Amino acid sequence: MLLEDGILAIWIQLATLFVLCSPGSANASRNGSIGAVVPIPGLTHVDHLGITVPDLDQAREFFVDVLGCEYLYTLGPLRDDHGSWMREHLGVHERAVAPRLHFYRLGGQAVLEVFEYQAPDQRLDPPRNSDIGGHHLAFYVEDLDTAIADLRRRGLRVLGEPTASKGPHEGQRWVYFLSPWGLQCELVSYPHGKAFHRNPEAFA
Amino acid sequence: MLLEDGILAIWIQLATLFVLCSPGSANASRNGSIGAVVPIPGLTHVDHLGITVPDLDQAREFFVDVLGCEYLYTLGPLRDDHGSWMREHLGVHERAVAPRLHFYRLGGQAVLEVFEYQAPDQRLDPPRNSDIGGHHLAFYVEDLDTAIADLRRRGLRVLGEPTASKGPHEGQRWVYFLSPWGLQCELVSYPHGKAFHRNPEAFA
Repeated sequence: MLLEDGILAIWIQLATLFVLCSPGSANASRNGSIGAVVPIPGLTHVDHLGITVPDLDQAREFFVDVLGCEYLYTLGPLRDDHGSWMREHLGVHERAVAPRLHFYRLGGQAVLEVFEYQAPDQRLDPPRNSDIGGHHLAFYVEDLDTAIADLRRRGLRVLGEPTASKGPHEGQRWVYFLSPWGLQCELVSYPHGKAFHRNPEAFA
Repeated sequence: MLLEDGILAIWIQLATLFVLCSPGSANASRNGSIGAVVPIPGLTHVDHLGITVPDLDQAREFFVDVLGCEYLYTLGPLRDDHGSWMREHLGVHERAVAPRLHFYRLGGQAVLEVFEYQAPDQRLDPPRNSDIGGHHLAFYVEDLDTAIADLRRRGLRVLGEPTASKGPHEGQRWVYFLSPWGLQCELVSYPHGKAFHRNPEAFA
């Protein structure tokens, strides 16, 4: 796909988390829509995922040394000491400040945008998975048990023992773990694929 | 890359948000490490991003009809009415229940795992971008102004007017918007690339 799309597309893909399908046929078949689904025009892919952490240096150590991300560059500051730009454009307190933010590449395609914010109304406890806005980032590993042993050696908190999935995820084992500041993460592995991959129509 | 990695890799890539580089050379050059960075063994890519929403049907409408995602399948329920499995494995209240969850594909590679939870201690207000655990999902669009006009026609809240980026992001314009339940999203566009893409070393 990269080759077909040419040089410009390669630039774009370099900063791409994931690529959205043309929604036509795939959505018509799997989403059960009667009429045509017409999403935002020209929306081609997810560009990046932004997350806010308490300590940008601690986060860099985790993303690079533990997860294997590539640090790209620093942006910022984002601030408006007198006006309402921060509230109007980012939905945060007018006096909120993001002194700097880091971009990471995950492979040739993926970008994480990591913020450190100071804000008068900042909540310090990350959402639980069960909260609205709860979230987790799941990473594929070739050997789940080896990876879990590595996490434990690093002193990272692993939530319980691995679980074997069922249904469309039959063939997968997973376990959650936490970054040092409480970002919910997950390791998954399905070295022989998942049931859904072998027979998608069985789970439509 | 898909062809080189063979059939098994294609299965894996189908459920992939983004692909992690082999960390060796890239990290050594850009992360400024003196010693070798040794991340989790066998961690090859991000498999999916999980998020919790207040209403799975409302979320499906947004992800499919607005963003153009492909609905894949439903999982769940996740619950343990008498034991502590939910707390031990997912870090949530022991009586938390996720009755069902939806998986979406974003292009051939990307998976979003969308949860609806009921929990005695559930927080209902999503984190702000400035909160620890604040987050946003950014989508690439070919024409920012056309896409913004479309969002406004749908009645979705767009945060202010587009901003032109500087530094490594020179060439990009962006704007934030909200899903109906308050998920922070962003549209970005850089039809002629970003400064970083033309000269990465200038921003190392």
